[in-house]
Amino acid sequence: MTEIRIPFRTVEYRDGKLVILDQTKLPEREEYMEICTREDLVDSIRKLKVRGAPAIGVAAAYGMCAVCRNEDTGEKHSAEWDSGREKAYLEELAEYISAARPTAVNLFRATERVLRAGTCAADRSASREDIIGAMEKEASGIHREDVEFCTAMGIHGLELLEPGMGILTHCNAGALATTGTGTCLAPVYLAQAKGYGLKVYVDETRPLLQGARLTAWELEKAGVDVSLQCDNMAAWLMQQGRIDAVITGCDRMTCEGDGANKIGTLGLAVLADHFGIPFYMFVPSSTIDMNTEKGEDIIIEMRDEDEVRKDFSGKCCSPEDIPCSNPAFDVTPHQLITAVVTEKGVVRPPYRENLEKLFAEK
Amino acid sequence: MTEIRIPFRTVEYRDGKLVILDQTKLPEREEYMEICTREDLVDSIRKLKVRGAPAIGVAAAYGMCAVCRNEDTGEKHSAEWDSGREKAYLEELAEYISAARPTAVNLFRATERVLRAGTCAADRSASREDIIGAMEKEASGIHREDVEFCTAMGIHGLELLEPGMGILTHCNAGALATTGTGTCLAPVYLAQAKGYGLKVYVDETRPLLQGARLTAWELEKAGVDVSLQCDNMAAWLMQQGRIDAVITGCDRMTCEGDGANKIGTLGLAVLADHFGIPFYMFVPSSTIDMNTEKGEDIIIEMRDEDEVRKDFSGKCCSPEDIPCSNPAFDVTPHQLITAVVTEKGVVRPPYRENLEKLFAEK
Repeated sequence: MTEIRIPFRTVEYRDGKLVILDQTKLPEREEYMEICTREDLVDSIRKLKVRGAPAIGVAAAYGMCAVCRNEDTGEKHSAEWDSGREKAYLEELAEYISAARPTAVNLFRATERVLRAGTCAADRSASREDIIGAMEKEASGIHREDVEFCTAMGIHGLELLEPGMGILTHCNAGALATTGTGTCLAPVYLAQAKGYGLKVYVDETRPLLQGARLTAWELEKAGVDVSLQCDNMAAWLMQQGRIDAVITGCDRMTCEGDGANKIGTLGLAVLADHFGIPFYMFVPSSTIDMNTEKGEDIIIEMRDEDEVRKDFSGKCCSPEDIPCSNPAFDVTPHQLITAVVTEKGVVRPPYRENLEKLFAEK
Repeated sequence: MTEIRIPFRTVEYRDGKLVILDQTKLPEREEYMEICTREDLVDSIRKLKVRGAPAIGVAAAYGMCAVCRNEDTGEKHSAEWDSGREKAYLEELAEYISAARPTAVNLFRATERVLRAGTCAADRSASREDIIGAMEKEASGIHREDVEFCTAMGIHGLELLEPGMGILTHCNAGALATTGTGTCLAPVYLAQAKGYGLKVYVDETRPLLQGARLTAWELEKAGVDVSLQCDNMAAWLMQQGRIDAVITGCDRMTCEGDGANKIGTLGLAVLADHFGIPFYMFVPSSTIDMNTEKGEDIIIEMRDEDEVRKDFSGKCCSPEDIPCSNPAFDVTPHQLITAVVTEKGVVRPPYRENLEKLFAEK
């Protein structure tokens, strides 16, 4: 198997401490921070120091172990062994951590799994050390699964790429959002390791510039041939013949195959269709919602208008009170999606039928 | 005729001085500056304090008069009348001013016309006061023509709009770029005066944010119902059914009807086509280049990559050395343009034939 080296670690567990790459400092500084209190853990998730659903899940899992190891438990743990007390402590901790970002499903699932490992051990009347050991084993499993998941996305996604291609991507669904090689960037790293010589064009992704700050940083650091552009330059790149495929992540997909992703994705899909360029959406099967029929059923989060009024430094570049639109996501209808890449394989239209097959195979 | 009040003056001539609205201070401050030296005049054009080809032309024309009135001409004008000396002075001054932005055709034409008025007067052995008077008359004519030109664009453009429409525009081809009601925004001001109740959606227009800084400012100031969005949100607005027409300016059009305009225009035209929304380009006949066949023949200016790397405050938001694309313009092929609005009327496809007719009618 091809060896892929990602030259940074978004999340690590070292000497009983959680270590994260502080993504709010990027691209200026690659700065790591140790976390061993519950307050720091929740703060790091809330302030997007660690971001991306998969990376948040792993950070929460390891973070829970680190807090158990390092918290001053004098009051919470009596000298005498008390299984009920241990379990109550863990439950309260898990609840505290999951509340960091209430809608993040990976966060909730990860803390739930680590909690269960801990309480099962407590039920076996294991020692405190053994309880934490069981939790660490579970956290490490979650981490390993995420890495394997990214690897699978990469292998399937690579079927769609060819050496020398020009690839356009939007926002960040990369290694920085996971603990592996990313979702939509996973095949790019794999192609890089195989010497494909891809050229990757990254949309800056206003208003929060995840493309400029994160995707450009991680790809350049890994030695990928990367170039940055403003979002409104994508059509020009396509007209010039520089783009052979568009790849994006996906935040939620309906059973018909309509995909919600970062604002701007829909526009890229329309442009790709016009210029005859394939448009591939990378969709972890966990984000496919078989209970939602159509794109119109997805409620779009509207964010603070100041993000549009201000530049990234916080300077207002428009009339101060101008009304703004600031949808966080848009929905790309399935007709514009050439193929959906999941960790289980590539799915082509008709999506309703083929996504159902995918779930049936589970 | 409907009275339109633009609540600011980009360019004025007052007491022998040129007065301009300093557009580099917008949208924070509406600040006017008096200009009466040649150095200040050229500086204001170079630093985009006055911008937009038509506005620059009028500023140069009045500016030339103001410099003549206010410059210390002790050395240049002898006490005795000398027609040759006067003409040499004016020629040298006109050349100095036209060099402010060498490719701006309006700037060149305006200074040329004012120069001719001055030298003709000098040939008639008019007094110094009479020479300047003749120049001022010519400058005022250029100003009046620009205002009338905008009015004509507005009247023709209004044929395409209906009350209650949602209109999307990009960059600034508005009143701030002219001394009248603008080119592509002229029908918006006319519609406003007629109570059409349009809703105008303005693209911020990265990297230099002319939409956020200028278009949003001027429309809001005029009481138009205006809303701002990031460039990558246009597709979402169209999908929501909020946009009934897209209107943009044009920097250069070929005889086939391919139009070069601010980067991002092509993408909007493709999106409009996809969503079945008409796309109108506002094209002063002076920017139609009957000697250029096709869009591919237009050379696109590539600007400093730092404009993409940095936000408007100048903070670098990407890896410092990341390669960037920064085309200033893109070319929209004629197939995507529903109609071209000129000061002479609305032109529909086939453009080659109908643009030729327009020129023949001249």
